[in-house]
Parts: sequence; C-alpha cells; structure tokens
Amino acid sequence: MRSEFEFILNLKKKYGLNHVGDDCAVLPKDGKTDLVITADMLVEDIDFRLDWTTPDLLGHKALAVSLSDIAAMGGTPKWAMLSIGVPEKLWKTRFVDRFYDGWFKLARLYNVELIGGDVSRSPDKLVIDSIVAGELRKGTAIRRSGANPGDSIFVTGSLGGAARGLQLLESGYQRARLRGGKRSLMDRQLTPTPRVELGKLLNSRTIPTSMIDISDGLAADLHHICDASGVGATIDLDSLPIDKHLDLDPNENVRLALSGGEDFELLFTAKEKYFRGRFSDEVTRIGEVTKHAGVVEVISNGARRILPRAGYRHF
Amino acid sequence: MRSEFEFILNLKKKYGLNHVGDDCAVLPKDGKTDLVITADMLVEDIDFRLDWTTPDLLGHKALAVSLSDIAAMGGTPKWAMLSIGVPEKLWKTRFVDRFYDGWFKLARLYNVELIGGDVSRSPDKLVIDSIVAGELRKGTAIRRSGANPGDSIFVTGSLGGAARGLQLLESGYQRARLRGGKRSLMDRQLTPTPRVELGKLLNSRTIPTSMIDISDGLAADLHHICDASGVGATIDLDSLPIDKHLDLDPNENVRLALSGGEDFELLFTAKEKYFRGRFSDEVTRIGEVTKHAGVVEVISNGARRILPRAGYRHF
Repeated sequence: MRSEFEFILNLKKKYGLNHVGDDCAVLPKDGKTDLVITADMLVEDIDFRLDWTTPDLLGHKALAVSLSDIAAMGGTPKWAMLSIGVPEKLWKTRFVDRFYDGWFKLARLYNVELIGGDVSRSPDKLVIDSIVAGELRKGTAIRRSGANPGDSIFVTGSLGGAARGLQLLESGYQRARLRGGKRSLMDRQLTPTPRVELGKLLNSRTIPTSMIDISDGLAADLHHICDASGVGATIDLDSLPIDKHLDLDPNENVRLALSGGEDFELLFTAKEKYFRGRFSDEVTRIGEVTKHAGVVEVISNGARRILPRAGYRHF
Repeated sequence: MRSEFEFILNLKKKYGLNHVGDDCAVLPKDGKTDLVITADMLVEDIDFRLDWTTPDLLGHKALAVSLSDIAAMGGTPKWAMLSIGVPEKLWKTRFVDRFYDGWFKLARLYNVELIGGDVSRSPDKLVIDSIVAGELRKGTAIRRSGANPGDSIFVTGSLGGAARGLQLLESGYQRARLRGGKRSLMDRQLTPTPRVELGKLLNSRTIPTSMIDISDGLAADLHHICDASGVGATIDLDSLPIDKHLDLDPNENVRLALSGGEDFELLFTAKEKYFRGRFSDEVTRIGEVTKHAGVVEVISNGARRILPRAGYRHF
C-alpha cells in the first residue's frame, strides 16, 4: 500500500504543485515579507486518545504541532484557524470550551490570533484541523532542500521522550498519577513545546542550510531532508542527545531516539563553524551531510550500518 | 443545547476575536491588497454520504463551498489547502485520486493553486477540511455588517434546488439514473456552482452594503446579515426566485426556498437604484432592509408574518 508520502509526491508531480513538500508552504506577502502556512489534521484514536489526555492538553497539542512547522521554517507565528468536528456526546459537555482554553493559553504565549475556522458535527470521533500562518523576512525561509555535503547535522533539545511517553500511555500509566521522570516523558508526548524561539533565532542569523521539525522521528525526518536536498547523511549514535528520563536499556533508548516521533525538536544542517561554543545547551551536533544521495548511515563504536526509513506513517 | 453559532459568538466575546464572524476573515496583505480566508469542514454522514455522490463530485463540492465564501466577500480566489482524514478501506481504492481530480478540475477554472494541507488516517469516516484564500483591493471586502435600513435585498440565481436535491437523494433517487429537472435539482446539491464571477463583479463596483452566501438557508443567512448589521428585513415571498425545476406544491416550494440550505447563491443588500435594469438575469430583488433589529418578516398576498431563524445547524 502506498504511504501518504508517496501519494503526496505523486500529487505534486501530477499537478505541478510547487509549494507542497516542506513543513510549510511559502508565499510572498509583501515586498519585505513572506508568509509561511501549515495545516495539521488530528483524528481521535489515530493521533490521540481522549482517555489519555485532557481537553486543554489536546488544545495545546493541536496548536503546538503546527507552531512546530512554523518554527521549522524559522518563521514567527501570526494567526491561526481551527476546524473541529465534534461528536454530539462531547458537544454536550464542557469539552470544547476546555479544548479552546488550552489552545488559547498556548496561542497567547506567541501572540497568535485565531481568525477563523469551522465548527462541525462528527458522527463518532473528534477531528481537528489546525492551520497556522507565520511570517519571515522575504527569502529567508529555511527549507528541507538546502543541505550540502560537508554540512554538520544538528538537533535541538533531546530525543526519544515523546515516544517513551506514548509507550507509558499504552501501558496504562495515567498522567495525573505520575511524577518525576515518567511524568516528564508523558508530557513530551501530551503537551509538546514547539521550538519557535530557537527557530526564529536560527533564521535571524541565516545559519541553517536546511531544517525540519521531528514529527515522524529522527530517521524518517532526516531522510526527508536528504531526499529534498539530494544528499546523504552519517549520524554518530553515541552523540545523540537522548532524553535524560529514558528508562529502558541503552539500545532501546537509542531506538526510540532514532525512530520515535513527535519530539518536535528541530533537525537542521549548517556549517559546523557557526556552532563552535554557541547554542551548546540547546543544540547538539549529531553527524554530517554526505554526497551519497538517499543513504543515511549510523556509526556506533566505529561500526557503520544503514539506517532504514523507519518512522511514523499513516498508511 | 447551544448551537454552533452561539458557541462561536461566545468564543468571539470571551477571547476578543475581531476577525471571526463573517464568511471569511479579512487580513491586510500589502499596501494595496487584503487577504480573505475561509475554512470548511465536511464530515462523512453529516455533510455528505458516499453512496449519494462520486469521489470527483465530492472533490468539486469540497472546494466549491469555500470558493462560495470567497465570493461572498467579493474576493478573487488565489490558493487553497486541503486536509483529509481517510479510512484505510478508502485509501486502498482510487477514491482519493478521483477526489483530487474533481477538486483540481474546479480549481483550474479559477486558477486556484493547492499549496498545502495534510493527509491523515481516520478510523472510520472520511473527513475533509477545505481552506481557501482570496484577495481583493484593500478595504473592499463586503461584510455581513453593512446593511442599512432602506437598502434593497437581492439574491443571485434561484433558490430551493439544493434542498430538493437532498430530498431526492434521501428518497433513494440515484444521480446516474436521473435526467431533466430532477437531475438538475440533484446537481444543485451535489455539484454546486460558487458565484465567484458575480461576487467579483459586485465588489468591483462596490455596490453591496452587505453580502453572505446562502449555505444555511435564506432565512438563517438573512438573519445572520440582520444580526451583524443591527437591522431587520422584509421579504416579499411572491418575488422569490424559486428554482424552476421544483416539483412540489407551491407552499412547499417556497418553504424549501426559504429554509433549504446549500444553494450557494449570494444574498446581498444594496441601494435599489444600482440594479434598475441591470444584472436582471442573475439578480432578483426580494425585499427591503428595515430598522427593526433582528426581525425578519415575510409578506405574501398582503399578509405579514415573522420568519423564524430556521435553517441548517449542526447542534
């Protein structure tokens, strides 16, 4: 069965869609400014479960995933639209009010204005479509396609936490009863922090040659950059910034860091010199861009192996 | 139970949302141009049924409903995003390909470019969120809020056809087997024509004082204009441009024309003098704006009665 990535690639070719295929579409706004815009659909029991989260955390996450796409272009978020399809049984409760409360709490942090959307009924499952638009200085959007052989590969923050949080939820842990490390892992999954400030900072210095947010998993998203840029990559496994709360055996921790999705960190390529001694708390160098188009290798203890395109896919 | 209209009004007040409450949000683009943008969510078994339509007609309609919102501001459609949540059983077929074919066939007519969106999985029902943006000369967006007492009320095209088409579908008629009038009625429901050219023409002459598209039904949408403008209205029932194919008794035909949704005609207010002898094929004068805020009356054979706020609502 074709994946959604193959489907979208086919659509892009068939209809000549020039703006499709990055974290955001980039459109000219005025003489000095470009608009970046993204849409993310979240469907109950596919992308979230109501018994795992709260209405306000879900509202937060619905906005956060789109803010993360704006961050991945280096944009400043400006406005948003929110379409929701709500089953009648939820509509009768305060669910939707609390959902919007969570959404607005995050929106206020970034001065994002809700300008529209739609409220519809759904027969059974809650459906959310989150649209966010941002702005940046004309021509400065950081795309997936600019990586050059020899560039270093960097990642912000830490990896694997969101995937471990999902495992905890699947194992029956409840957020309200957790404290400490496990709670932190679960919060990486349920209430992610988009790297908006860091994305803007990187853009303002026009340092990255390419950037993407880690939503499908490091392996999959690095492949997206390699595909778009026509390059390959080598990753040093021992350098991965593994979430300090990960509590599995070392191999399993690395696997989550490589293939677990939804960390919503930024993955980018840049010349190494820009990062010597700077951003060191927030950014880790994890590897290097190579000429071997489409080939992503990992090195660990001196041994090399090919990293498959593993990661989240809907189909 | 509160309706979605009450919910949105409450949200608008609670969070001070200045751009919410018209067919489109209006945003400044550059010194000469405003952006108008709309989102419409369509959910299987609420807004459409797969056994009543075809994938390409559904693709057409998903775009048409949003183009109609652009038309209602007097805008020129420019670009779109499309988010879809697809059940696996549909994904395995050519359904989605044909859906996009229908979408693009209409998009090409208006030079609308697809710039993004999302493709997700859905557990059971197909879900579509259609986002369309248009442009217009700065300050010329025609809102719901500008109607003045003494203005005439006009409607484009004819009314009631889409609602009768829905009745035919509910009665088990199949489009492929219909010809003539019944087929025309069904096509009003399944493959509506947005009044984009007429909306642009009205805007270019800055004639309407207010405008809305008829999606919820004439009665409901006229109430939306009256609410936004702080006015009332009187409608002459005998002047309604009833769809010539309507095949029920006269009272029932009028009821469909008043309360049936999804005709996607434009309802607008303007000084009568602008329309004497012009646009006569496409535009019908159906009544007058009054000072009686929130009161919509209908006159038929000299008798007056109050027209309730009947029309489509999700909740």
